[in-house]
Amino acid sequence: MAVYKHVLVGLDLSPESRQVMRRVQELLGDSDARISLVHVQEPLSFAYGGDIPMDLGQLQVKLEEQARERLQALAIEDGFERARCHVLIGQPAHEMHRFARENDVDLAVVGSYGRHGLTLIFGSTANGVLHGATCDVLAVRIQPEKADH
Amino acid sequence: MAVYKHVLVGLDLSPESRQVMRRVQELLGDSDARISLVHVQEPLSFAYGGDIPMDLGQLQVKLEEQARERLQALAIEDGFERARCHVLIGQPAHEMHRFARENDVDLAVVGSYGRHGLTLIFGSTANGVLHGATCDVLAVRIQPEKADH
Repeated sequence: MAVYKHVLVGLDLSPESRQVMRRVQELLGDSDARISLVHVQEPLSFAYGGDIPMDLGQLQVKLEEQARERLQALAIEDGFERARCHVLIGQPAHEMHRFARENDVDLAVVGSYGRHGLTLIFGSTANGVLHGATCDVLAVRIQPEKADH
Repeated sequence: MAVYKHVLVGLDLSPESRQVMRRVQELLGDSDARISLVHVQEPLSFAYGGDIPMDLGQLQVKLEEQARERLQALAIEDGFERARCHVLIGQPAHEMHRFARENDVDLAVVGSYGRHGLTLIFGSTANGVLHGATCDVLAVRIQPEKADH
């Protein structure tokens, strides 16, 4: 994988995220590629379809902090101490594309849930990232039976 | 890339196919992974929406022979002498999924044309392969300016 210089790993922070991280570890080996672990949080205004009252704004900040802590914990647990962690706010595929363009990412790695089960919730992210990416995209097939719960 | 034991490389035999092959070469390095170069040809009956008269049947056979020759030529030109070449007939994503399942493929590599230009023609194949794949999928971003013509 020495061909890639900057690898973005998109993580939804589900238990299955660790399958994606393990695959990246296996693939990168002792490569000195730069690694960015990215979680994109949809803004609460997207979810509720309007402006955010003050308490929802505070909730957003709180959720963002929690996501950052969880991302950093995953990075340490899975041997990504040298990776940089980023929590972005917006539409997942769009934010990953933007980050990739602005940071010269040449490989984006995301989990892919296939046709069944969680596809309805997460499946579109891998497709969304693939569609419109300016870099290579590796979709790591999540194996439901191996999920860490 | 030693983590992958059997790599399927899906090729549309366009000039851009060579970008995909070069990336696979770079990634595999001296790995001893099994490599299958696969081109899927849509049957003429799909294109014309009916049964194939005898002369179209002969044309199909001729097209299949030409595709096989082109695939084998690409394999030799790009240093894939040890790869096995397969021309399959059917719907591209479906045939690649079937081949992958039946042959224990753990990584499928396809070209991805992004949003512009050839997307309308080829873009759906990468998405189709991603959706429903039982293995990892690497979409190699085709760089239009580097296309070999």
